Amino acid sequence: MTTNLLGNNVITQIGLLVNDIERTSQAYANFFGMDKPNWFWTDTPDVAQTEYLGNASEARAKLAFFDMGSLQLELIEPDHHPSTWRLSLDENGEGVHHIAFGIKGMKEKIAVLEGAGMPLLQKGEYTGGRYAYIDSFKELKVLIELLEND
Amino acid sequence: MTTNLLGNNVITQIGLLVNDIERTSQAYANFFGMDKPNWFWTDTPDVAQTEYLGNASEARAKLAFFDMGSLQLELIEPDHHPSTWRLSLDENGEGVHHIAFGIKGMKEKIAVLEGAGMPLLQKGEYTGGRYAYIDSFKELKVLIELLEND
Repeated sequence: MTTNLLGNNVITQIGLLVNDIERTSQAYANFFGMDKPNWFWTDTPDVAQTEYLGNASEARAKLAFFDMGSLQLELIEPDHHPSTWRLSLDENGEGVHHIAFGIKGMKEKIAVLEGAGMPLLQKGEYTGGRYAYIDSFKELKVLIELLEND
Repeated sequence: MTTNLLGNNVITQIGLLVNDIERTSQAYANFFGMDKPNWFWTDTPDVAQTEYLGNASEARAKLAFFDMGSLQLELIEPDHHPSTWRLSLDENGEGVHHIAFGIKGMKEKIAVLEGAGMPLLQKGEYTGGRYAYIDSFKELKVLIELLEND
């Protein structure tokens, strides 16, 4: 047994990349007998302060959330600025992008993961918190998102 | 609002395809500070009665499970007989294969989903229950697994 690198193993979210958030939101609503949620844009660059591969990016995405009992399902339709969302959608097509975990201490957690060979891909701010996508694919076969809510 | 086609929206499992279940199990155990679970083979064909695209298949897979708080994470290393596991691993590489939901009434649920344009890909039995993979990718951008425990 080793120490849990995140301090948490509860998956709070599965994120899926989609080309048409309206269409896929409607498909989920129909399938699960739920109301179709309204999608919204991630914050503007001045608020989001998005960094992708170490550089500032104007990338934004449309997001929609479904409560799936055990966790949230997040649909993501990215714009065409550079981001892990856009790259993954262009290279791999639609489908699962990440699983997310709530954490405390974003800078420290990013440093721990970088030290373990899992580099930061993208980070940004949102009202009430911040996120980071970690390139954990080689080890875990899926990207990890860290979510820190204040 | 429509009727929930499954009668349930709680994701109980995320399934990931891997090439080396020992290696990825160890990576998860290290990352999350958990004991490495033992993997095991799915049942032999006489018990599993696996059908893939309507034909009997001898396909089996090594499975390992991690309890991630909100749900189970399942690692799947398939053998080389025909299966959705093998096809997806060969075509898409390692990564998320399905999300799973507990259901009651497997035959009826499969019929409902086929009627909604989502055909059965593969089904089989295991001690205490049965599973079915549904081709929901076009609509939901991920495959759905139905799990029925007796």
